[in-house]
Parts: sequence; structure tokens; C-alpha cells
Amino acid sequence: MNFSPLISQLIDSLKVLPGVGPKTAQRMALHLLERNPEGAKRLADSVELAIEKVGRCPRCRNLTEEELCGICRSSRRDASVLCVVESPSDVMAIEMSGGYSGRYFVLMGHLSPIDGIGPQDIGIDELEALLAEGEVKELILATNPTVEGEATAHYVAEKAKQYDVITSRIAHGVPLGGELEFVDGGTLTHAFSGRKVMNE
Amino acid sequence: MNFSPLISQLIDSLKVLPGVGPKTAQRMALHLLERNPEGAKRLADSVELAIEKVGRCPRCRNLTEEELCGICRSSRRDASVLCVVESPSDVMAIEMSGGYSGRYFVLMGHLSPIDGIGPQDIGIDELEALLAEGEVKELILATNPTVEGEATAHYVAEKAKQYDVITSRIAHGVPLGGELEFVDGGTLTHAFSGRKVMNE
Repeated sequence: MNFSPLISQLIDSLKVLPGVGPKTAQRMALHLLERNPEGAKRLADSVELAIEKVGRCPRCRNLTEEELCGICRSSRRDASVLCVVESPSDVMAIEMSGGYSGRYFVLMGHLSPIDGIGPQDIGIDELEALLAEGEVKELILATNPTVEGEATAHYVAEKAKQYDVITSRIAHGVPLGGELEFVDGGTLTHAFSGRKVMNE
Repeated sequence: MNFSPLISQLIDSLKVLPGVGPKTAQRMALHLLERNPEGAKRLADSVELAIEKVGRCPRCRNLTEEELCGICRSSRRDASVLCVVESPSDVMAIEMSGGYSGRYFVLMGHLSPIDGIGPQDIGIDELEALLAEGEVKELILATNPTVEGEATAHYVAEKAKQYDVITSRIAHGVPLGGELEFVDGGTLTHAFSGRKVMNE
């Protein structure tokens, strides 16, 4: 015996969520049906609405349903600094830290020739158009410290050379509160090669 | 800065899913928007359809969108045995084990005076109506081995006394493959008091 067709279909479609397998999907489906039909209705509506309306900001490529995203629109952000990140979650993480007041450019991925993701797919043309405007004075590359992220950072840095802009890469090293003992070798090597003089 | 209104609303509504907190909801929302808009559309549709159509089987109270659920409808199920469980997931777990061929009655909860859940809420009247038909010869109580589950089982057993039916409770003891060392005291006590003679 199985669940009825509609319930099976619901369980199946819940599996599109990241980290949700058959067992969790079943638990979610029964929870929605038994305990929270109103919440489920709201969920269906918001998914539908978001999928229909949310697109990309034409300036920074971040996800938004507005004509220009909140950050690009805000006059309180420093338009002379542009931070290049891989995804909207990275924007959110940096915003949460509260230490950055410039604008962003969201690549929506990283260069990955194996998966057929080239410069056009990560919006390099749009980024160059933005740099050509001349307002941006510093370009901060905050792609992930992975092989692809590094390669993407180098590619962007190479392209940026044609423009009158300072290009920097965020620092890699030992995370605050992390104990040296548990930090991986690659990070330690980065931390040593990026060391700073303290008694200048 | 926050996500745009529609994205925030999506993140918020994903939190109705069990085990999904703000961080996971954010990851799910961005995943749906960035990677899988088709899957998200399907998800919205199935949730909507299921919420609208799925109700309860009038005979066993299990979730179904059909007039009578698959198990109640099937002529291959033994109508003389009725297994009482707390929820549809319990039905699924027992079906998966493959060892049971009778029918079910789903309480959709357990007695819990503190939460104001009384006999009417768990369908005792419907269960009695079913027993009064006389077709059921054995009633197996498979509510959870929790305080509320035990109390519910006792309540149902008490009610069943008026009908010509054998009432049994599923066995509690050491789970197969479990090592005694790691089994809790309550289960061990149950296992001892429920011991069976091997050399009759």
C-alpha cells in the first residue's frame, strides 16, 4: 500500500527542497496535511508568487522583484566600492556582518568549464559595463575560497585591469575563535603567507 | 538590508515545514529561486491541490482524497482484524514492514486532556460504530509506547469490552538488532515482564 496519489505527489514534490529526502518529505507532507493546512496554503501561495515575480536586479544581478534591488537603489550605499560575490546568500552573509557599506555584484555562480559555465553565464559583460561607467573605484572580490571561486576571482581581476579601479581579494586565514589545532593545512598556509607586520 | 518582500515572505512561509528554521528556510528559498523554479512551481501546485482535495477516509479516518481509502476499499485486506494507530505515518510504517494484512483505524492523535483532546477528537464514536457492525474480530492497539499512547490504548480497550472482539496490544521489548547495553530501562522492564517461555 502507498499513500493516495495526491499525497504521494506532494511527498515527491517536497523532495525538490535541498536536504529533503523521502523520509523527511513524508514527514513534511503529513505535517502540512494534518496540522497546518493554513500554513501550507500560505506556502503554496508564496512559492507561486515568488517564482512568478522575482527576477534579477538589472544592475547587480541579485534576486529581487523590484525594478532595482534595495541596495542598488539606496543612496546610503557607497557607490565607489563594489563587492563581487557568487550568490545572494553571500550578500546576505556580508550584510549580516554589518561591516560593509558598498554595493554588490552577484555572479550567480562561478566559472566552471566542466559544467559549461563561462563568462557570459556569470555576467562578466554586465560587470564590465558597470566598471566602464567609472563610478566604481574599488572592486572587492569575495568569491568562495574554492578552486572555482579562486579561478573566477583571477578571471575578474584580469578583466578589471582595463579599468581605473583598485581590485582586491578578501583575506583568507584562520577564522576568529577558531583554534589552530583544528584549522586545515591550506588555511594555515594562507594565514602564514598573508601575515601582517605588527610593529611598523 | 534584507531580502526583497516576496523573498522574505517565501522564507517565512517555508518555516511552517517541520524542522525548518530561518537558516534552512533561506537556503531552501534561494535554491528554489536560483536553481529549480520548475520544481518550485510543481511544489506550489501539489501543496495547493493536496490541501484542497485531501480529506479523511470516512471509515478509517486516514488521509485520502478518494471516497474510501485504498486499504478500506481493498478486498484483499482482512476485514476481521483492525489495527488502531495514532497517525498516517504509523500506517505507512506498518505497511512497510509487510507483515500485516488487516485494516486500520487512525485516531489522528491521542487522548491528551491537557491539550483538550478528548475521545470525540480521536474518533472513538466512529471506532465504536465500526465495532458495532460486528465484522471486526480482533482489535490490535498499536498506539505509541508513550504515556498518552498507553492511556489511549487503555481507553480504547475499555470501550471495546462492550463488543464481541479480542483486544490486543502490540508487544514492547528490546528492538531487533538493538544491544541490551543501549536499551533504556523502561524498555528492558517491559522486555522482562513480557518474556515468553521457550520450552513449552
